[in-house]
Amino acid sequence: MNGTEIKEVETRLFRVPLREVMTDAKHGAHTHFELVTVTLRLADGSEGTGYTYTGGKGGYAIKAMIEHDLAPFLQGRDATGIETLYDGMLWHIHYVGRGGIASFAISAIDIALWDIKGRRSGLPLWQMAGRAGKTAKAYRGGIDLNFTLDQLLASIDSYLKAGFTAVKIKVGKDNLADDVARVKAVRERIGPQTTFMVDANYALDVPRAIEAARAFAPYDLLWFEEPIIPDDFEGYASIAKATGMPLAMGENLHVIEEFEHAFAWSKLGYIQPDASNCGGVTGWLRVAALSRKAGIPVCSHGMQELHVSLVAGQTNAGWVEAHSFDIDQYTLEPLRLQDGLAIAPDEPGVGVVFDWQKLATFTDTTA
Amino acid sequence: MNGTEIKEVETRLFRVPLREVMTDAKHGAHTHFELVTVTLRLADGSEGTGYTYTGGKGGYAIKAMIEHDLAPFLQGRDATGIETLYDGMLWHIHYVGRGGIASFAISAIDIALWDIKGRRSGLPLWQMAGRAGKTAKAYRGGIDLNFTLDQLLASIDSYLKAGFTAVKIKVGKDNLADDVARVKAVRERIGPQTTFMVDANYALDVPRAIEAARAFAPYDLLWFEEPIIPDDFEGYASIAKATGMPLAMGENLHVIEEFEHAFAWSKLGYIQPDASNCGGVTGWLRVAALSRKAGIPVCSHGMQELHVSLVAGQTNAGWVEAHSFDIDQYTLEPLRLQDGLAIAPDEPGVGVVFDWQKLATFTDTTA
Ligand SMILES: [Mg+2]
Ligand SMILES: [Mg+2]
Repeated sequence: MNGTEIKEVETRLFRVPLREVMTDAKHGAHTHFELVTVTLRLADGSEGTGYTYTGGKGGYAIKAMIEHDLAPFLQGRDATGIETLYDGMLWHIHYVGRGGIASFAISAIDIALWDIKGRRSGLPLWQMAGRAGKTAKAYRGGIDLNFTLDQLLASIDSYLKAGFTAVKIKVGKDNLADDVARVKAVRERIGPQTTFMVDANYALDVPRAIEAARAFAPYDLLWFEEPIIPDDFEGYASIAKATGMPLAMGENLHVIEEFEHAFAWSKLGYIQPDASNCGGVTGWLRVAALSRKAGIPVCSHGMQELHVSLVAGQTNAGWVEAHSFDIDQYTLEPLRLQDGLAIAPDEPGVGVVFDWQKLATFTDTTA
Repeated sequence: MNGTEIKEVETRLFRVPLREVMTDAKHGAHTHFELVTVTLRLADGSEGTGYTYTGGKGGYAIKAMIEHDLAPFLQGRDATGIETLYDGMLWHIHYVGRGGIASFAISAIDIALWDIKGRRSGLPLWQMAGRAGKTAKAYRGGIDLNFTLDQLLASIDSYLKAGFTAVKIKVGKDNLADDVARVKAVRERIGPQTTFMVDANYALDVPRAIEAARAFAPYDLLWFEEPIIPDDFEGYASIAKATGMPLAMGENLHVIEEFEHAFAWSKLGYIQPDASNCGGVTGWLRVAALSRKAGIPVCSHGMQELHVSLVAGQTNAGWVEAHSFDIDQYTLEPLRLQDGLAIAPDEPGVGVVFDWQKLATFTDTTA
């Protein structure tokens, strides 16, 4: 090693309030998100920062696992052997891992390793991660199930005004008729040219999902996201076969074997891995490789400021979600749009530099 | 509620050294285990204690999740609505959960709820959990891959001397010939009457597992445990079909959908849920119910002092593993054997009362 051994692992937890209370079908009201950052410092003084986020729960457990289980593993190891470290971390905590908190913890560390790699090589993430392009299709994903119809349409207007040419809303109301009314109203508001998706956050079962997919059919949806629980791989295929509706999921799959099951059994139209919970850049790229074999466009969920580079870099790029958790507002370079496309940053590293001063207010000191 | 609302959630973490260093094929050397206990206190003053354990990693994250995410959820809720609380906890941390740390954390709490239920009703766990019987077949499971052949045989002798009539050893050496030599030596030592199993801790892939199962065939094994990674559900079926060897797994399945996949696709001979990581008593009983539908005996992994009651209570009872992590030595009533059978305690509650004084030495104060 030439000074590339890991000397210090600094973990920070922030609880960042949302600008308004946001609700989806299964997680109830969101009032803030948690941001866990990991800064790795090497013997030669170089450093990099990675991160993960949650909907408000689990942040303390993620921080505890990094500090007590993963940091001791990383100490003194070569930061340039990313694949080795990635697989090593997976095995190190396998018994208490295989998804869940472990995937979030490993993701934050892996992103920090890629940040170091980019800073040392002078390459931006979109070039390290496929280099197919530096722009990606982007859509604005609302967390808006609690919004009145007027609020919903006002939020859609604001998305279009911000430059988005594709929008997604939540569905999963108790009555399908309510969902259909919202879908119909949004389609009428945005006109036929704007791309439109819906997301049920697995509020339905297979029969209700089939009924919903048929009711949504007249409104030209690009996809129907997470109609049912992510674990029911064959259930997805049943819905797709019965309705022909393109289905999307992935934000709740954490380990590569879950993605393998989804590709093999679920007849998905789109896959949506999230680098914050499927193993960072390394985990996300492994899913992207599988998606190409499966012939499915690879999209993303959450943390648009990082995913823009990952999606842009792929030959089978799908859509970047511009998520309502605005992590990018706490970075030096929030997501940039041009003609509806998101633009990947050219800075060496992962291209996400936190505004620590802005975040400082939200530091959690009880962890 | 009649004073049954939850008022206090006390979580403790202990790091308990093992009497000797123990090694398996995938987790390396074990030097201690972690014990996380949860004591719930209700408004009426009644209380109960549950727990989970790890192989030495993840304990801090489990404790953090209980204290920061689950305790606030439990506060003020009715402790007698166990199923409601169980499903509520699953959804409460679903986004960062679905297995991993979340399953360990929920398990500890669920066991505490059952402890309260038993103490309030005067019933022991084996009666609450099926009441089919109060004894269970038991075997001693070694973690002995690093033992020399002499050490291995000495440990087997000690198991038989302690009253066990069934033993399990680790396999998964780099060379199959070494494994076969150990299996052969142990079978010769224990004679044809003693039940014998082996456990590879998923060190193999499907072709190597098929080769190993064929090589082990002459030695009359009851089962071959975890030959491959737990996620490869169809891989298990391939091995079973190719060799006819009865396969066992379950200690690494955390959520009910994983067990559903295993029952549907893996052609297992035995299922081995662990109440410390598959959702406590509630989670374990749900797996047991599925195992009856599948026609597969339900066994257990680890924490014999609790599982003896769960296994004994089932009409399709398999085998209780007496694990090398001797949690029961830190309780007031260690596992009792009679004629090779393990005897479930008759004390109201889950029947596991910790010797807090004995544990005090191992309290972790850095968490
Ligand atoms: Mg979604
Ligand atoms: Mg085992």
